Amino acid sequence: MAARLQAIELERRIGAGDARALARAASLVEAQGEAGRQLIANLFPRTGRAAMVGVTGAPGAGKSTLVDQLAKVLRRAGQTVGIIAVDPSSPFTQGAILGDRIRMQDHHQDSGVFIRSMASRGKLGGIAKGTLEMALLMDAAGRDVVLIETVGVGQDEVEVARLADVTVVALTPGQGDDVQAIKAGIMEAADVFAINKADMPGAERLEQEIRAMQSLGSEEQRANAAPVRRVVATEGKGIEELWSVIRAVFEKQGRRGARAETWALRLREMLRDRLLGALPDELVEEHAKRVAARAEDPYEAVEALRLSLAGQG
Amino acid sequence: MAARLQAIELERRIGAGDARALARAASLVEAQGEAGRQLIANLFPRTGRAAMVGVTGAPGAGKSTLVDQLAKVLRRAGQTVGIIAVDPSSPFTQGAILGDRIRMQDHHQDSGVFIRSMASRGKLGGIAKGTLEMALLMDAAGRDVVLIETVGVGQDEVEVARLADVTVVALTPGQGDDVQAIKAGIMEAADVFAINKADMPGAERLEQEIRAMQSLGSEEQRANAAPVRRVVATEGKGIEELWSVIRAVFEKQGRRGARAETWALRLREMLRDRLLGALPDELVEEHAKRVAARAEDPYEAVEALRLSLAGQG
Repeated sequence: MAARLQAIELERRIGAGDARALARAASLVEAQGEAGRQLIANLFPRTGRAAMVGVTGAPGAGKSTLVDQLAKVLRRAGQTVGIIAVDPSSPFTQGAILGDRIRMQDHHQDSGVFIRSMASRGKLGGIAKGTLEMALLMDAAGRDVVLIETVGVGQDEVEVARLADVTVVALTPGQGDDVQAIKAGIMEAADVFAINKADMPGAERLEQEIRAMQSLGSEEQRANAAPVRRVVATEGKGIEELWSVIRAVFEKQGRRGARAETWALRLREMLRDRLLGALPDELVEEHAKRVAARAEDPYEAVEALRLSLAGQG
Repeated sequence: MAARLQAIELERRIGAGDARALARAASLVEAQGEAGRQLIANLFPRTGRAAMVGVTGAPGAGKSTLVDQLAKVLRRAGQTVGIIAVDPSSPFTQGAILGDRIRMQDHHQDSGVFIRSMASRGKLGGIAKGTLEMALLMDAAGRDVVLIETVGVGQDEVEVARLADVTVVALTPGQGDDVQAIKAGIMEAADVFAINKADMPGAERLEQEIRAMQSLGSEEQRANAAPVRRVVATEGKGIEELWSVIRAVFEKQGRRGARAETWALRLREMLRDRLLGALPDELVEEHAKRVAARAEDPYEAVEALRLSLAGQG
C-alpha cells in the first residue's frame, strides 16, 4: 500500500517534469524489474509527445560530439532534452571506459539535459534491452526531444534507429574500403545524412557517393532521398542547420513512433526478451550437454525447449 | 519416397566431400525450409570435426583479405576450407555490392575452397540466421577449417564469433576515437588479435594499447591473454605466422564448439528464431495498432502475444 502510494507520487513528479524523479525512475527502468515495467505501463498514456531522434554511424564518426552539439542547439532554443547513449559494452571492462564520459560533466549543471548510457545487448540478445522503455520514460517526463545514439554497423543498431522518429546517419570522409558496405546497410534507415569532420579531405567525394547511391533507387525513393548536410561537430559548425533539416523531416513525415508499424517492431523485440527470459538456464544447459555429446540434434533440443515454454503459459 | 531417396543420396555425397553436393545442400540450408533442417539433423552426427575460426573486426579492418590469405595458407598445407562471410545487408541494394566479391573469382577454380555469403539478420532479429547451420554443413562435408567472417562492432557479431572455436579480432592503426570502445566490446571475445595494415603508422602504439588493456584483467585473464600478431594482409605478410598462432590456441583450448556452453548460446538463438517465426504478422500488427492508439499498453500487448504462442504449443 505504501509502495503503491510512493509509486503514484513518483509518477506525478515525473509527469510534472521533476528531474530528480526522472533519475530515480530511470534507475528503476534500468533494473528491468516489475516496478520499472509497472511505472512505464502507468506512464504510457502520457507518451507520444517527444520527438525521438536516432543518431547512428560507424565507429569514429563522432556521434557523441554530434549529439552533444545538437543538445546545445536545442537548449539554446529553450527545449528540454533526453540523451540515451547505447554503448557496446563488455563484461571485461564493465563499460567503465565509456561510462566515464566527458559529456556527463559538460551538461552537469543543466537539468534540462538528462543523459543515460545503456549497455547494448545481454546474453539473451535483444536490441539494447530497455532502450525503448528509457525513451518512453523521457517522453512521459516531458522531454521535448530524445536523442538516441547508437553505433551503427550491425543490423540491430539500424533497428534501434528505426525506433526513432527521425534517423540521422553520421559518416566521415576516408573511413576505408568497407564504407560502401556500411552505406548499403544503413541507406534504408537514414532520414538525414550528416557528413561529420567535413573539413577533412574527401568530404565532397563522400557527399557525391551518397547522392550517387540515392540516384539508384526507385522514383519514389529518389523523390524522398534523405538530405545530406556537412558539419564539423567538434567546432559546432553546421549544427543549427542540421537541426533545422532534422526538424523539417520530422514535420514532413510525422511521428514515426506513433505508427503501428513501428510498434510492431517494438513488440517483437519485447516479446523476444520476455520469452527467452522465462527459460530456465539449467534446462538450456541440460539440452546443450546432450547436443554437444551428439545424443540429441539441435532441432530436437529446440523443440523440447519450446514445449517447456508453452507448458508455462 | 523418391524425395527421401534423393535426400539419402545427397547426404552420402556430402559425407564423401563432393563439392557439388555441398553447393546444393548450401542452397537448401539458405532457403531455411524443412528440407534444409532435416538435412542438418541427419548430418549432425558427422559434425564436430572441423576447426571453426571466426574473424571479426571493425569496418575497414581488412577482414575479407585476411580471410582469403588464411585460406591460401591452408590450401598450401593441403587443408580444405569453408568460408562463411556474414555481410551487413540491405533490402535497398539486395546485397549486390558485397555479393560481387572479387574473392569469389580468386578461388573459383579450387573446389578445396567453398564460399558462401550470408545476409545478417532479418526482420525477426537473430544472429545471421542460418550461419550455424551453414557451418555445421561445411563441417559434415569434411572441410578441415571453416572461416566465419563478420563485421564486429555490435554485440551480435561478437556472439557469432563465439560460435567459433577460435576468434581472431582484426584491428588496424588509426581507426579514430571509438577504437577504445570497440576494443572494450570485443576484448572478451578475442582469442587472437591480428593488427592488420601493420605497415601503417600507429601499429606499434595499437599493440601497446591492446597489451595495456590486457594488463587490466584478473590474474587468470592476464595468464590467458590473447596473442597479438602484426600482418599486412594485402601482401600476405605475417599470415603463416598468424595461422600457427591460431592453431596453437585451438590446440591449447580445444574445440569450443564441442562444449555445452557454446551449444547453450546456439540453442537460445535457434529457439528465438523458432518462436518468433511462429507468430502471425497480422496478430502483431493488430496489437501494434492498439498500442499506437494508446488503447493498450505495450506490456499488455506482449502478454497477449505470448499467450497466443503458448496456445499453439
